[in-house]
Amino acid sequence: MARYVIGIDLGGTKIATGLINERGEIIKKVTMPTLAAEGPKTVIAQVKVSVYEVIKKASIDINEILAIGVGAPGPMDVEKGVIKNPPNLQGWDDIPLHNILLDEFKLPIGLENDANAAALGENLYGSGKGIDNFMYITISTGIGGGVVVDGKLFKGANGNAAEIGHSTINFEGPLCGCGNKGCWAAYASGSALARFAREGIKNGQKTVIKDIVGDENIKAEHIFAAAKQGDDYAIELIGREGYFLGVGLANMVNIFNPECIAIGGGLTHEWDMFYDRMLYVMKEKALKANVEIVKVVKATLGSDVGMIGAAAVAWNVL
Amino acid sequence: MARYVIGIDLGGTKIATGLINERGEIIKKVTMPTLAAEGPKTVIAQVKVSVYEVIKKASIDINEILAIGVGAPGPMDVEKGVIKNPPNLQGWDDIPLHNILLDEFKLPIGLENDANAAALGENLYGSGKGIDNFMYITISTGIGGGVVVDGKLFKGANGNAAEIGHSTINFEGPLCGCGNKGCWAAYASGSALARFAREGIKNGQKTVIKDIVGDENIKAEHIFAAAKQGDDYAIELIGREGYFLGVGLANMVNIFNPECIAIGGGLTHEWDMFYDRMLYVMKEKALKANVEIVKVVKATLGSDVGMIGAAAVAWNVL
Repeated sequence: MARYVIGIDLGGTKIATGLINERGEIIKKVTMPTLAAEGPKTVIAQVKVSVYEVIKKASIDINEILAIGVGAPGPMDVEKGVIKNPPNLQGWDDIPLHNILLDEFKLPIGLENDANAAALGENLYGSGKGIDNFMYITISTGIGGGVVVDGKLFKGANGNAAEIGHSTINFEGPLCGCGNKGCWAAYASGSALARFAREGIKNGQKTVIKDIVGDENIKAEHIFAAAKQGDDYAIELIGREGYFLGVGLANMVNIFNPECIAIGGGLTHEWDMFYDRMLYVMKEKALKANVEIVKVVKATLGSDVGMIGAAAVAWNVL
Repeated sequence: MARYVIGIDLGGTKIATGLINERGEIIKKVTMPTLAAEGPKTVIAQVKVSVYEVIKKASIDINEILAIGVGAPGPMDVEKGVIKNPPNLQGWDDIPLHNILLDEFKLPIGLENDANAAALGENLYGSGKGIDNFMYITISTGIGGGVVVDGKLFKGANGNAAEIGHSTINFEGPLCGCGNKGCWAAYASGSALARFAREGIKNGQKTVIKDIVGDENIKAEHIFAAAKQGDDYAIELIGREGYFLGVGLANMVNIFNPECIAIGGGLTHEWDMFYDRMLYVMKEKALKANVEIVKVVKATLGSDVGMIGAAAVAWNVL
């Protein structure tokens, strides 16, 4: 008999809930925009509805589900199953999501921070299959990460390990959303890339980027689009993006000494445009013994990684 | 019947070998200066002699020893028991120390990089007793570290994890011995502190530091001595040292999310002179959820940490 879990990717903009089998295959899925502005009560109701919808869609009963896993934004207390106060989930403050879902569904519930869940998913079903020392990094609006050793997440004391986006790569650098200066994310996230472009344009840089989109609406994708048109400034910005990614990757290689680093997130849609530079800089900066052993690859689960990762979390609580 | 192992702290300047019991107590010890300039053959002979001397001193037979542990400078291949090419062990290049000692003593042999061994020692017998998510950092001429989770070392793919001294904290910073720019060690190690003082004096800084010792022989200890005499420049340098230590500590707190960080190494002799500033900066820079849970303490095993750590490595191979 087939065995199923439910994986819930609870994000600030989207909830994606899937019925997933032991091979990490999605049997059915339901997605909906997160009504984040309406606060935790509404969002929690959405989460519950998404579970009922997905089992209805699959024509199975809740009793046929073995466990439910959730990947959600941090910070959280994983031990207690409590979501603290994520910047992109407005009004959340110490919400005991584990117990809320346990009360509703009477099933084993696993809760993990989203990047950790994704790391587990890629390790179990994606780019990191069979790799003992594995690291997943997501580069999108921010930078997050998760580390899996011998099939187990490296969680830290309260589940907040691998907050790699907020490691300082230049203590004299720009202010980050977290309050620190010169975080990796403040240099190399998609938002940082867009910020650099806006600053450059303000300072009179010639570029077609602002012809593609208004000054204020620049996103990373517009810079890649401009670079493909041969725009010098966009090409320079992407060169710097590769450099900043390489600096942080070198730190990860020295600190975690992984066998494989898989990179996912929005920026990897343009993988070929920064990969060479990123790798060059990483190899130049990291220690030889650590560089020798590491492979850097593109993550393979794509936009389903959060949901499949949440399912991996569910299998892990069984 | 008492059970014993031998712990060998193989350093670039000193070999310290101890007979150690299950409580981490040193029964007998032998130390000698490392004849590093004479190359691996001589140093390996010294290591063997030190083992025979310590069991002779304790009036026991080699058969009463359960295992031998060695802490040595990296890089190394821990799986294969091979020491690669440590900067402070001249002429070493892929030396299979594990097999050499196995041939000699016919006992289980454990080999670990020195900072990892020390981390294990502090976790088992020192400042980290009973702590599940523990990190040890040594600040002396360089900066090294080791992470222990649930009693097991976080080793990485080839035993070179936690090379934290070579994480970049300012990619525009000074060149480090490893070839990278702006490593934590290039800012906050004892050598870096001394280098900043020499540079300042060259640039005309007024200070009593050079009256304590000639310009070229300045070490961290002289700067602390000058600060105790009220020397403004020395006090400024130590303030900056505390800042740089805090920057790197914040990174460790965000990345490893430990419950306890114990700091050892030469600089901790002057713990009170930099602790407050270091902690202040760390708390200001690291994420709240991670700061809340972490304690930062002085390591307790002192100068025996290498030897006791090597003994912990020995117990771990049994």
